[in-house]
Amino acid sequence: MSNKIITISREFGSGGKYIGILVAKKLGIPCYDKDIIEKIAEESGFVDDFIRRVSEYAPSKSIFAYSFVGRSASGESIEDRIFAIQKKVIRELADKGPCVIVGRSADYILRNYDTLDVFIYAPMEDKIKRTVNFKGLNEKEAKKLIKDTDKKRSINYKYYTGRTWGERENYTVMLNSTDLGIEKTAEFIAEIYRRETEK
Amino acid sequence: MSNKIITISREFGSGGKYIGILVAKKLGIPCYDKDIIEKIAEESGFVDDFIRRVSEYAPSKSIFAYSFVGRSASGESIEDRIFAIQKKVIRELADKGPCVIVGRSADYILRNYDTLDVFIYAPMEDKIKRTVNFKGLNEKEAKKLIKDTDKKRSINYKYYTGRTWGERENYTVMLNSTDLGIEKTAEFIAEIYRRETEK
Repeated sequence: MSNKIITISREFGSGGKYIGILVAKKLGIPCYDKDIIEKIAEESGFVDDFIRRVSEYAPSKSIFAYSFVGRSASGESIEDRIFAIQKKVIRELADKGPCVIVGRSADYILRNYDTLDVFIYAPMEDKIKRTVNFKGLNEKEAKKLIKDTDKKRSINYKYYTGRTWGERENYTVMLNSTDLGIEKTAEFIAEIYRRETEK
Repeated sequence: MSNKIITISREFGSGGKYIGILVAKKLGIPCYDKDIIEKIAEESGFVDDFIRRVSEYAPSKSIFAYSFVGRSASGESIEDRIFAIQKKVIRELADKGPCVIVGRSADYILRNYDTLDVFIYAPMEDKIKRTVNFKGLNEKEAKKLIKDTDKKRSINYKYYTGRTWGERENYTVMLNSTDLGIEKTAEFIAEIYRRETEK
């Protein structure tokens, strides 16, 4: 049987990243998020000096920050090169063994793999609360960050996948992390995974 | 504790109605769908002679067929009266005890109740297959029926609830019945319900 991969897409502030970590822990498999994938990309040597030099100017010093800037209508842009690297890293991780991958359009990148594609969402007021708590922002700043981040995710996803971010047809299951609670949401994903891999 | 109600909204052909029946069976609670709610409405005496007379002209002879015809911009139309009856019946059923309610905008009608709001969806090709099997139509006819029915549901839902049908924020969980399979989808809903009511 091929490795079964869980991909988690999520609204900013919905707790999706933490849910990914919990699911992986319950199943005893690794969880990869943006930071880890970026680190692997850098260590692998896929990231060349050109990308590294340009990244120096990114506000977060993250190579993935460039997924979010404007694009040229034709020709390979810096973003295209970074997406290609990200794709290579994600597929190599998926080939290595079962795992959880949070974000990074992994549902699309692994569309020919055996995946359980999850989308996590929550009401705006709860996303704001969570963002205020974890990022030390006020409510207005938190709301802006949530909206901006998800808008960027949505544009980026559309550009590279042709799909609509958050559209149900792309996912196996979509869960409201507030209604269910973070812990139970993670438990359900793990439970679905266990039964799917029992087949 | 108040009665916990499961509402199931579903794309036509996704198996949502059958899933509702399976969930109810697993939990030992009743399942109410359009036909049952209509029957209760008629027996209750909510349906007066006027509605009955107009219904005679509905293609399906169903009072709910009128949810789908054009509406006047102001004043109480026949559809408004029927929606009001439906609301009354659904709330009475919810007050009686835990149950599963399929369709009929029950997620909105019971928005102040303790509900588990589920949305079932599936890829178009699978909905077509299911509709061809169960309705004895050819593929083209099936596809048209699926699209028309969901379009009507969507318009009707928007009109009476102000919400967007199928929009994730209205539901606790959204499940792809093809990816998970009908039986497992039902089992997951039952499992979520069991844990939620354990609280």
